[in-house]
Amino acid sequence: MTTATWNDAKMKTFENLESEVRSYSRGWPTVFEKSKGYKLWDTDGKEYIDFFAGAGTLNYGHNDDAMQEKLIEYIKNDGVIHSLDMATIPRKDFLERFTDVILKPRNLDYKIMFPGPTGTNTVESALKIARKITGRETVISFTNAFHGMTIGSLSVTGNSFKRHGAGVPLHHAVSMPFDNYVEDNDSIAYLDRFLEDSGSGVALPAAIILETVQGEGGINAARMEWLKKVEALCRRWDILLIVDDVQAGNGRTGTFFSFEPAGIKPDVVCLSKSIGGIGLPMAITLIKSEYDQWGPGEHNGTFRGNNMAFLAATEALKNWENDYFANAVQEKGAFLKSEINRLIDHYPELNGEARGRGLMQGIAVEKEGLAGEICAEAFERGLIVETSGPDDEVVKFLPPLIIDQEGLVKGLDILEDSIKHVLKK
Amino acid sequence: MTTATWNDAKMKTFENLESEVRSYSRGWPTVFEKSKGYKLWDTDGKEYIDFFAGAGTLNYGHNDDAMQEKLIEYIKNDGVIHSLDMATIPRKDFLERFTDVILKPRNLDYKIMFPGPTGTNTVESALKIARKITGRETVISFTNAFHGMTIGSLSVTGNSFKRHGAGVPLHHAVSMPFDNYVEDNDSIAYLDRFLEDSGSGVALPAAIILETVQGEGGINAARMEWLKKVEALCRRWDILLIVDDVQAGNGRTGTFFSFEPAGIKPDVVCLSKSIGGIGLPMAITLIKSEYDQWGPGEHNGTFRGNNMAFLAATEALKNWENDYFANAVQEKGAFLKSEINRLIDHYPELNGEARGRGLMQGIAVEKEGLAGEICAEAFERGLIVETSGPDDEVVKFLPPLIIDQEGLVKGLDILEDSIKHVLKK
Amino acid sequence: MTTATWNDAKMKTFENLESEVRSYSRGWPTVFEKSKGYKLWDTDGKEYIDFFAGAGTLNYGHNDDAMQEKLIEYIKNDGVIHSLDMATIPRKDFLERFTDVILKPRNLDYKIMFPGPTGTNTVESALKIARKITGRETVISFTNAFHGMTIGSLSVTGNSFKRHGAGVPLHHAVSMPFDNYVEDNDSIAYLDRFLEDSGSGVALPAAIILETVQGEGGINAARMEWLKKVEALCRRWDILLIVDDVQAGNGRTGTFFSFEPAGIKPDVVCLSKSIGGIGLPMAITLIKSEYDQWGPGEHNGTFRGNNMAFLAATEALKNWENDYFANAVQEKGAFLKSEINRLIDHYPELNGEARGRGLMQGIAVEKEGLAGEICAEAFERGLIVETSGPDDEVVKFLPPLIIDQEGLVKGLDILEDSIKHVLKK
Amino acid sequence: MTTATWNDAKMKTFENLESEVRSYSRGWPTVFEKSKGYKLWDTDGKEYIDFFAGAGTLNYGHNDDAMQEKLIEYIKNDGVIHSLDMATIPRKDFLERFTDVILKPRNLDYKIMFPGPTGTNTVESALKIARKITGRETVISFTNAFHGMTIGSLSVTGNSFKRHGAGVPLHHAVSMPFDNYVEDNDSIAYLDRFLEDSGSGVALPAAIILETVQGEGGINAARMEWLKKVEALCRRWDILLIVDDVQAGNGRTGTFFSFEPAGIKPDVVCLSKSIGGIGLPMAITLIKSEYDQWGPGEHNGTFRGNNMAFLAATEALKNWENDYFANAVQEKGAFLKSEINRLIDHYPELNGEARGRGLMQGIAVEKEGLAGEICAEAFERGLIVETSGPDDEVVKFLPPLIIDQEGLVKGLDILEDSIKHVLKK
Repeated sequence: MTTATWNDAKMKTFENLESEVRSYSRGWPTVFEKSKGYKLWDTDGKEYIDFFAGAGTLNYGHNDDAMQEKLIEYIKNDGVIHSLDMATIPRKDFLERFTDVILKPRNLDYKIMFPGPTGTNTVESALKIARKITGRETVISFTNAFHGMTIGSLSVTGNSFKRHGAGVPLHHAVSMPFDNYVEDNDSIAYLDRFLEDSGSGVALPAAIILETVQGEGGINAARMEWLKKVEALCRRWDILLIVDDVQAGNGRTGTFFSFEPAGIKPDVVCLSKSIGGIGLPMAITLIKSEYDQWGPGEHNGTFRGNNMAFLAATEALKNWENDYFANAVQEKGAFLKSEINRLIDHYPELNGEARGRGLMQGIAVEKEGLAGEICAEAFERGLIVETSGPDDEVVKFLPPLIIDQEGLVKGLDILEDSIKHVLKK
Repeated sequence: MTTATWNDAKMKTFENLESEVRSYSRGWPTVFEKSKGYKLWDTDGKEYIDFFAGAGTLNYGHNDDAMQEKLIEYIKNDGVIHSLDMATIPRKDFLERFTDVILKPRNLDYKIMFPGPTGTNTVESALKIARKITGRETVISFTNAFHGMTIGSLSVTGNSFKRHGAGVPLHHAVSMPFDNYVEDNDSIAYLDRFLEDSGSGVALPAAIILETVQGEGGINAARMEWLKKVEALCRRWDILLIVDDVQAGNGRTGTFFSFEPAGIKPDVVCLSKSIGGIGLPMAITLIKSEYDQWGPGEHNGTFRGNNMAFLAATEALKNWENDYFANAVQEKGAFLKSEINRLIDHYPELNGEARGRGLMQGIAVEKEGLAGEICAEAFERGLIVETSGPDDEVVKFLPPLIIDQEGLVKGLDILEDSIKHVLKK
Repeated sequence: MTTATWNDAKMKTFENLESEVRSYSRGWPTVFEKSKGYKLWDTDGKEYIDFFAGAGTLNYGHNDDAMQEKLIEYIKNDGVIHSLDMATIPRKDFLERFTDVILKPRNLDYKIMFPGPTGTNTVESALKIARKITGRETVISFTNAFHGMTIGSLSVTGNSFKRHGAGVPLHHAVSMPFDNYVEDNDSIAYLDRFLEDSGSGVALPAAIILETVQGEGGINAARMEWLKKVEALCRRWDILLIVDDVQAGNGRTGTFFSFEPAGIKPDVVCLSKSIGGIGLPMAITLIKSEYDQWGPGEHNGTFRGNNMAFLAATEALKNWENDYFANAVQEKGAFLKSEINRLIDHYPELNGEARGRGLMQGIAVEKEGLAGEICAEAFERGLIVETSGPDDEVVKFLPPLIIDQEGLVKGLDILEDSIKHVLKK
Repeated sequence: MTTATWNDAKMKTFENLESEVRSYSRGWPTVFEKSKGYKLWDTDGKEYIDFFAGAGTLNYGHNDDAMQEKLIEYIKNDGVIHSLDMATIPRKDFLERFTDVILKPRNLDYKIMFPGPTGTNTVESALKIARKITGRETVISFTNAFHGMTIGSLSVTGNSFKRHGAGVPLHHAVSMPFDNYVEDNDSIAYLDRFLEDSGSGVALPAAIILETVQGEGGINAARMEWLKKVEALCRRWDILLIVDDVQAGNGRTGTFFSFEPAGIKPDVVCLSKSIGGIGLPMAITLIKSEYDQWGPGEHNGTFRGNNMAFLAATEALKNWENDYFANAVQEKGAFLKSEINRLIDHYPELNGEARGRGLMQGIAVEKEGLAGEICAEAFERGLIVETSGPDDEVVKFLPPLIIDQEGLVKGLDILEDSIKHVLKK
């Protein structure tokens, strides 16, 4: 029996019982059983290098020993697992550690909100508070932004397939060109002109929301000076700046927050994915104290008290007590960048373009479908890697941040073999 | 030191670091440490009877032994914790068991969708698929409905405080009177008239969404004949019927789905809260096979693969392999109903009205603020119980379904003492 | 050559050159040349009794002698014909006469706004000012309302064909049941419940807009006590009451404003159609002085200074200097009502229902298409009469108010012959 | 008594009885009595040169003799004045003459729709048909566009004061930069990028709507090559092109349609203002035959049969039977342009910028409030001239097209004196 038909057999349950909306189980048609660090194994025992990290959820790798221990201990002691937003020890510990380890050293005066455990929950809460604070309705987002799948978040998301899925028109949002959207054009001038001109047709917005590196949109990294200009615009017009750091935050780009190198201070920050440490659902919204003007329960939800996630999240913060972890990510990012450039030079048929920063990088390739073929081939060879971008034209690299040199090299070797194989066809 | 000031000390972290949006930690100002079955303990060792069950998330009680074991074993074996919608063993097991134990015996032909791990995720996905299938935009919801806090779900939610929190007008939804909304009026006649009259100003909707018992809206239980009529309307006009069983499902009213006694077959069913067994974030959307016309990834999200939740969820299904569990819930519900009626008779000052069915019941009281005072007093006396309704006028009982006679009686005793105490003031 | 084919020839220009959207020239396929009083003549010299009056625009009949003279004199003197909202003598005269003849005697303290010359312009301006004054967005309208074809007015219009024509979803409006919408139900209770319940899903509206007699919606006349209750609701909840008197005003129901018998004082009144006297485009919006809080030019438009319309409008006001005209309309209305009842009794096959009041009446007939057949037959026999209602199920009578007994009888005779003829088939 | 207080007396009626929304009667506080050609006289007999022409409604001047005669004759013969969209002789004549004189020689295959008598009616109808034809909802409009005051038209209008007046958020429209909006930037590249990128956040629109010269928005004239590029974009993406020629059409820029020099063929054209010849309310929508897919009455309205307007409109078409009229406008436009440039050179304090083409020109001046002061001074000296632009920063020249050299010179002399006077202060 070939791997393919064997897989078919394994995948029957999913094909027959699960909705057609499923996606990743199509591209990687195998049943995963175990995982540790930067590796996964399927039920056949086949090993995979993980260059995907749960779409950026497993920055600290799979099944970190210390986190595992915390979880087991907590369960054994009958710790409160579900608690809405009642006070519990893990919630208390997380609030205190996050404030001490992350906020204070960065001189950030944020209140911490638990908006529900997913990325779209934090984005929806961010949009709400910005509208409440300003009394305005419009939010400016950017081309190729991805902020989530519920209607509020979808309205500030660029992808037309996802937007169309809403089944209703999406309002109260204006899409502006991201950095470098049109060649030789500083999109800031456009944005500025629209804001200053009372005849522009664009109302003064409540907020500007952005990702510093657009993960789903094609690993488009904004320049630091562009981010600074956007912040300046926000200050000039009294607009709230929301940074959606769901994918780019938690150290992904080499600093805890992706916007640190720009020296900006967003009014609201959205965090999810890796904030939960071990991959359990969790999200937080950081809101400048002066803007934390919610009424009690004005935004609520059932799963705002996922205590097991808080435990792992608090454990993960240990990585940020000094600079070792961040420095290591930056070094690995530099190595990855050089390897990507080497591949682009070596395989001119790719017409490749290097994208991203830190351990959030990618290669945009010109030919339609090529990126997908490379990823499919890589999977066969034992590497989990995904495409990104409006036309799935980018091979995206999101390895766990804890990956070592050996893992990176091994993964890149598989990738290069896959490129070779695909280009040969 | 009085309890109050002692609590103040315990609660400082939450007051100083967490957003003002927090709610339950205000009404129950203590730090919870442990929980088992229908009981919780705070850091002082004070015991609480749980008549709240995580707002219906802990139907199977706190820290079920078998579920705990499954989780610990999985963690010890480095099972995949986070997996987006990749295929894993716990996902496979859940899909198969849910189909075999729940769907097949009820003759329900649904595909299972993982829409993200919260109630609002499943509602948003349900609205989307209904709009996609019908090509229509309007959705009819009901007065005092609660479906979630993201913009799509909020648009079909009745509560004006929550709606106002959106900061933008909410569209594409029409609110119709729930069963018994206006005295001596069958709201079905209104609904029917609006649908049949081409001049009514209400477009043919994509779907009607409802809760059979409105949990947040005041424990309003629709009559079975009303549900049947709504289904008939849907069939006549080719409208999809969505039942949001997030709070009323998973056995809460005495059958797995709350709509079973009405003999109806919704086109889409939303489940969350207790579907995850032990309180971990999880939600599913059940879609009639013929309507499962999603494109791959048309609705996606990061936390659709919470494998620990799947493990506990599969374990929980054991309760549904025969009728014992359901029968027990019904019996406890009948006992609770008789006790509620006794309290109403005994304390005419309450002007009380019995609401709900199964283990989802309540007492609506007339005087403004009275329900809240009763719950506050009950907390002091060791009972966790919450209000509900547009004016917080209902004392709501949602004990874990696994509660025994002793627990019910103990809780009701505390409640009666609290009522007495409050009425005396 | 038969009339039909001859007509075909006459109508070629319209079929070939005019848009498919044309409607009345389809039902009455002839070219009209002259008109006077309550009669029209086509290019063949065929005479028609007018029971339509330009859909209520020609209350004072066709080509009133005095108005004609005023127009001719004005043109001969090079009077300013178009003047935006510059000050002119006809504008001044109209403002003064309307205030003296209509507003003061009725103790109405309204400012007069010229919102553009059509019914939909006045409705759009009324909705805007109500939203501005209250800072709210929602407007409550009623089933089978008709307020106009531009997007703002269409959003408060009931007809699904017209609404669908918008091509976009229509927002910020909630449709409530008009008087007698569902049998044996006081829709006021329903409305009241939605307003008082903070969980109803209907936000406190800026305004309630209504026609006292729904012209396009089926000649549904609200009872005076219902109108009083709606006004009381508006006062209780601080909602603006807008009466759209575009079709029912200007004496159509027997008093200048249709709402006079109810003793209510709307906050905003919309007038158009017959306000222009001779059929020239004109509209005004009456706004309680305290609510006239527009900024200069906040609502503007090119044709707010149609001086020829002002001339005829001022001339028409002579009819309201005493009670003769109003009394005569009421008498003719009573006669028409008795005749309608006679027809309904005499032709039980109609399953007829009498509708309306004053000279705004109709017969609703049960059988689909029957009303249209009667009108078509009447046209052949020399009577201009139209259908109304969501299914075109009402034969609608809107004769010019200046019609005499002879004209009414003659028109009704033709109608009766048409009914007989159609029922025989 | 000074002029000012004398005026106060004259204006009392308007201040006391008319709504605060009035605007032109504030800037030109006198009562106008007579008008002929390019002149107006007030009740004091003071003469004014008209450089405003009813905001472009009186292209053929005031009270054209031939049109006056037609109107008087028609009234005397009891011609049908108001006729909804019934067939009449003036309607027939207009349809035929417009087709023969305007459409056929320009090789334009349009059906003629009467959408109601104002500019905003034609724009609303254009948006509706574009949405119906394409099944899409979004319409792209441009910065500083002005299309009307009803909600549909307002949604594609740029001015924030007017938009805010809506009292509700305006949807289904995206504002893109007009030609030359940002210096050294071809806004076409930007537009193109948004359309081609499936992640841009801007859905494929139903239509692009534009004015070739933005009248209210500041006399911004698009270059012909820009218009060609927009048309090419529309063809490439199968988007309807709507030209709103309400102000710039009817010969204002030197050709009947303003877009003729660009050689483009819009799918829909909106005409109003001067189409009615003598200033009576009238509008038409021209729709490519293949797109004329309305249902009968899908868009309707009371004043679509203003026969007196049709008479004058048909008479006005005589000017287009040969090239004399158009050539004369072009010559006068060239003269006006040279004079404007002279003024700008001569008065460097203005920091003036020449805008516009044909007889639709203006001078943008830098200093806030300066343009308004010049217009106010000009009024005192007997010249009617208005400002335009988002900050009222443009002195706008819209003389009647029939103005002679003497009139132009006289008007410009008054203007120059006014400039001198104002600059001296």
